[in-house]
Amino acid sequence: MSLFKSIKEDSMLKRVVITGGVHGNELTGAFLVKKWQKTPLVTKNIKIEYLLGNPKAFKECRRYIDYDLNRSFSKKALSKDSYIYEFERAKVLKERLKSCDFLIDIHTTTANMGMTIVLSKDDPLSNLVAKKLSLEFDDVKILRWFSTSEGDFINSAVPHSITLEAGAICQGVLEPRIFFRCEEIVKRAVEILDSEINQDKFEIGKSVEVYDIVKIVDFPREENEPSAMIHPNILGKDYFQLKNGEPIFVTLEGETILYDGEPLYAVFINEAAYYEKKIAFCLCEKSKI
Amino acid sequence: MSLFKSIKEDSMLKRVVITGGVHGNELTGAFLVKKWQKTPLVTKNIKIEYLLGNPKAFKECRRYIDYDLNRSFSKKALSKDSYIYEFERAKVLKERLKSCDFLIDIHTTTANMGMTIVLSKDDPLSNLVAKKLSLEFDDVKILRWFSTSEGDFINSAVPHSITLEAGAICQGVLEPRIFFRCEEIVKRAVEILDSEINQDKFEIGKSVEVYDIVKIVDFPREENEPSAMIHPNILGKDYFQLKNGEPIFVTLEGETILYDGEPLYAVFINEAAYYEKKIAFCLCEKSKI
Repeated sequence: MSLFKSIKEDSMLKRVVITGGVHGNELTGAFLVKKWQKTPLVTKNIKIEYLLGNPKAFKECRRYIDYDLNRSFSKKALSKDSYIYEFERAKVLKERLKSCDFLIDIHTTTANMGMTIVLSKDDPLSNLVAKKLSLEFDDVKILRWFSTSEGDFINSAVPHSITLEAGAICQGVLEPRIFFRCEEIVKRAVEILDSEINQDKFEIGKSVEVYDIVKIVDFPREENEPSAMIHPNILGKDYFQLKNGEPIFVTLEGETILYDGEPLYAVFINEAAYYEKKIAFCLCEKSKI
Repeated sequence: MSLFKSIKEDSMLKRVVITGGVHGNELTGAFLVKKWQKTPLVTKNIKIEYLLGNPKAFKECRRYIDYDLNRSFSKKALSKDSYIYEFERAKVLKERLKSCDFLIDIHTTTANMGMTIVLSKDDPLSNLVAKKLSLEFDDVKILRWFSTSEGDFINSAVPHSITLEAGAICQGVLEPRIFFRCEEIVKRAVEILDSEINQDKFEIGKSVEVYDIVKIVDFPREENEPSAMIHPNILGKDYFQLKNGEPIFVTLEGETILYDGEPLYAVFINEAAYYEKKIAFCLCEKSKI
């Protein structure tokens, strides 16, 4: 188990940070963090800190005030004073995350992604935690999204991390099924970090499927605004394999638009926050790790 | 048919206004209005104007900028200059609605309300249009909501109106099923106004069920923030009859909270925009008109 040894040699995990509400209108993570701030999770070897990512956006129940905080961790955004609230908040969070060994960041999506662990870099320890969760929980899938042109994720501020992306759920609401399932998965992730990795009990197990985002598909647009909607045939079907010739959009006039491309797996289908990012859905390759 | 005659004597309908995007993140109405601005509906006797209610909030994909526009039509809000964007926009809309005989206002909700016609005052003509739609469309229900303490609806600016409230759909997204169903219902409403009421062909038909909001239920709260979520047993079950002793909330700690009251019908269950209004759901009495 050379992979495991190389992680252990790195150093013992001491400090874990859990963030929620990095997007202010994704209430599940924000309320989990608030719950744990009052009643912290019990751990043996690690210290956990709970952070509300974007308190100002949370107060206004908006994704962000000036710019997406989860795209505000680029060197450029962090390097100079800014009128953008999120660029300043990112500097504060970067400082708070200085001695963080492992970050767990909780998000939700209006896409029907179930319980997805998003990995934002190819790091052996993060991979292993994701893999273990995916093997233990039937509904956990692993998605790798290593970069966007918009700016760096909060994960770039720490050496190791997983992002939990739960859906489908609307912005601005709580739902018990998703709330308690996220709680369960994060608790288990903490247990793995606290008792299995630190205690040398980690077992790698068999291989799991992972999805790698390789392509972005935007809505057809007129004067910058969507002129079509996600086709009913694919709405809510995240992680299905999209094949050449299948319907992907229906225009506002009712005309169907077909997919023209190689077979790939669709995720983030109809995520509300991605309309402005010019993402109707993302396409992935599937492989095993 | 005295009711019908009294409407007809009122005056012929000449000018109908259709509004969408009074809440900027309810995309269905906004995009229907934009569609019809490009390709207007065909009518014989009436002139229709299509208005995007809150263009600034639509641009930012937010419900409102400073205050809920659909609570900004009170005398007080309309009577003096204001730093609140929506109070100023309401004055503009009030002027635009001056010679409007009938308003159709399109909204969406994260609650599972299906296709609901909301009536905001007890007006015979509005009642009749709602009734006819409810008789013709299986999924159309009639809800009467005559006042809120927050301020007056846009409907208060016109003599007759219906509001279409469609759900469940998240804020910030379009979905074909809801988009085309709203289009169908609004088109039929226009047809009724254009050809049946104006042409003296209106038939009252048999009685229909209506729901009257009589009570508001808020989330349990701690320091002003919800400390519980809608219970899974009632989530998505709008228009069901809630009975004494049934679960209504589950706290963030997993404890169930039961309903203590007379049997009433629940609507607007878990509407995102109502968290800040201190509304977890509304309770209705059901009757026939």
